[in-house]
Amino acid sequence: MNKIDLKPLKGFRDFPPEQARKKELILNTLTKVFSSYGFEPLETPALEKSEVLMGKYGEEADKLIYRFQDLGKREVGLRYDFTVPLARFVASNPTLPFPFKRYQIGQVWRADKPQAGRFREFTQADADIVGSNSLLADAEIILIAQNSLKELGFKKFIIALNDRSSLFQILSQFKELSNQDKLSFCQSLDKIKKIGRENVFRELKEKNIKNGAKIIEKIENSEKSNDLKIIFDYLEKMGLKKEIKFEPSLTRGLDYYTNMIFEIYAENYQGGSLAGGGRYNNLIKAANGVFLPSVGFSFGIDRLMEEMEQQNLFKDRRPSLTKVLVTIFSPDYLEKSNQVATLLRSDNKVNAELYLEPKTKLDKQIKYADKKGIRYVVIIGPDEVKNKTVTIKDLSTGRQSTIALDKINQFFGF
Amino acid sequence: MNKIDLKPLKGFRDFPPEQARKKELILNTLTKVFSSYGFEPLETPALEKSEVLMGKYGEEADKLIYRFQDLGKREVGLRYDFTVPLARFVASNPTLPFPFKRYQIGQVWRADKPQAGRFREFTQADADIVGSNSLLADAEIILIAQNSLKELGFKKFIIALNDRSSLFQILSQFKELSNQDKLSFCQSLDKIKKIGRENVFRELKEKNIKNGAKIIEKIENSEKSNDLKIIFDYLEKMGLKKEIKFEPSLTRGLDYYTNMIFEIYAENYQGGSLAGGGRYNNLIKAANGVFLPSVGFSFGIDRLMEEMEQQNLFKDRRPSLTKVLVTIFSPDYLEKSNQVATLLRSDNKVNAELYLEPKTKLDKQIKYADKKGIRYVVIIGPDEVKNKTVTIKDLSTGRQSTIALDKINQFFGF
Repeated sequence: MNKIDLKPLKGFRDFPPEQARKKELILNTLTKVFSSYGFEPLETPALEKSEVLMGKYGEEADKLIYRFQDLGKREVGLRYDFTVPLARFVASNPTLPFPFKRYQIGQVWRADKPQAGRFREFTQADADIVGSNSLLADAEIILIAQNSLKELGFKKFIIALNDRSSLFQILSQFKELSNQDKLSFCQSLDKIKKIGRENVFRELKEKNIKNGAKIIEKIENSEKSNDLKIIFDYLEKMGLKKEIKFEPSLTRGLDYYTNMIFEIYAENYQGGSLAGGGRYNNLIKAANGVFLPSVGFSFGIDRLMEEMEQQNLFKDRRPSLTKVLVTIFSPDYLEKSNQVATLLRSDNKVNAELYLEPKTKLDKQIKYADKKGIRYVVIIGPDEVKNKTVTIKDLSTGRQSTIALDKINQFFGF
Repeated sequence: MNKIDLKPLKGFRDFPPEQARKKELILNTLTKVFSSYGFEPLETPALEKSEVLMGKYGEEADKLIYRFQDLGKREVGLRYDFTVPLARFVASNPTLPFPFKRYQIGQVWRADKPQAGRFREFTQADADIVGSNSLLADAEIILIAQNSLKELGFKKFIIALNDRSSLFQILSQFKELSNQDKLSFCQSLDKIKKIGRENVFRELKEKNIKNGAKIIEKIENSEKSNDLKIIFDYLEKMGLKKEIKFEPSLTRGLDYYTNMIFEIYAENYQGGSLAGGGRYNNLIKAANGVFLPSVGFSFGIDRLMEEMEQQNLFKDRRPSLTKVLVTIFSPDYLEKSNQVATLLRSDNKVNAELYLEPKTKLDKQIKYADKKGIRYVVIIGPDEVKNKTVTIKDLSTGRQSTIALDKINQFFGF
């Protein structure tokens, strides 16, 4: 590795322990919430055949797929999201019991321009219901997203909803628009918050879509669809009211959405939506001809982390780092120290590190614990062995106490 | 996706819910054990610069790296293991407190020939200690691997140990061997169990390495190195004795190992080692010139799963699948059913699915639960609402009982 740049690739990141622990905490919380609603995990490969991925997301997104030829000259690509691989999985497993409720958590890759809060590799957590046309499924998906945010400690957020089929209905009134134009229009309108109204108008003109301003005005003055009214009603019955709002110009960027779409924002967070999703009724039919209407959503874990950091939500849910360093008084005391470390660890009660250089001076061992942010140092020397005690130093207060070895469980509260 | 093959790429797999849950269970267990020893998580990207990956594993392995040019014409590759990315991370973060103890769990990719139990994408779980030359670190690494297997339910296994520096000492007696020959020799000898002694001889001849039989005989008759004696002694003090054995012809396939190496086998399992690892003292020095001797190991999760399946170890640790289906008696009862589902889920007590098509007949809802393997069905109809009760049907016994709503927690044992 001589003389090479040791940083990760542009748009890719290392997650050192503290960051990785926070992420672990988020993912564990989401797994519990998803499971509590009866969702089961699914794992699909990171690499898919190119033909599986291409033509599902929209022309702009398609360009961002990491594609290459493997050693066997197969055209392959890194997954861009979990929805298209889900559609492939379901289409190739027709005997699944439907509705199929699954979650998937992992990395996805997009060769996007790296910028603040946007990466080329990032973690997503998705939950989807495949094979149900019930609007209750739409409501449940939104409820789970909201519940997940609550479990993570978020208090204030806004859920914006729209119905893409109303959008298409309005667009159909403009006879000059082809189907491709309509999708392309939605991709542009989706950027209105990001790039501003004027830039959207310009982009539409460049795409040769006329009447941009007029269409957008018509969209902005439209009313809730019947489906959306029913979904709002379900959500109210399920306890959501203040948080939900109808947003007629919401489009979502991806071509595969067909009906209800939604996004969740944290109040005062400028980095975009924390979650987004919607109904995609034709994706699986396009794969195997079977009509399996579906609805789901996706969390961007990196944005969640960033926002939880900003709102100081990790404060009360400190990730479980190593709590104790068991020192080694001298090589002769290795066995005793090892016994205490083993006792602390048993049944995973306390995360305890054993110092590994038996000849190191005690104060150097303590400095090591301090540097690593380990709160307690345990010392077992000749006196402790004779009296069947251990000495515990609390590095956060500097206080030191010697207690009976068989009281160590009480000290650490297990 | 019309007319395309919907199966995953050759050597890649989907993990449907039951498989994914089992994997989740293994990974959670390993995370707990690793953390209990004071190891912290690290995450590195799936993609690395090619130059970071190449030239570390050995010529045969290098060929198996998934490499390609990204859109920005950078030479990149999918990670082959976690050790080389760890070395890159540590080399680029010189202010870390050492020894740095970290674990990493995730996918790695190898363009290997797919065969029984060998895949192109698989999950690894690694634990490593970076920056310690203490032989106690070697012992701890082996202890953690053993402890992990115990926590997963394994009872009988063999830990084979060797010291690669003794191997190199013997090889140095054969002056005709270049350094590259020595590494190449180890790669061949590593296959002795897989392809047999005769094929190893032949391969060595093809590599133009003479005296193959003589060298191997010398290796097989060699004795434990001093380091290995000390490690055996530490392991005995830590409670391992029967399981450990010296295996002078053990080499491990990867070039970066320098000293102690080990592999763990389950008794009666033919699919190769469940875990392997060793000491690699020069990998980080090669990256940034700083001597940070390191030791670690790696679990192949797919083999672990396969072997746990064979030994029926999932029996007593059934992964937590959905336990209850809350039916909807008729659309008017949606709110009541939703309340019960919410109660069951609160604080993640019981994983409970709400049926999503309110107009479906009750027996069809029950059939759905049965097909999905959900054990309990909860019914809330007019009588139940009037009497503040719920009816619970146990699909495993067919028994049905009506209990007070406020006793539902007792029924499900929370």
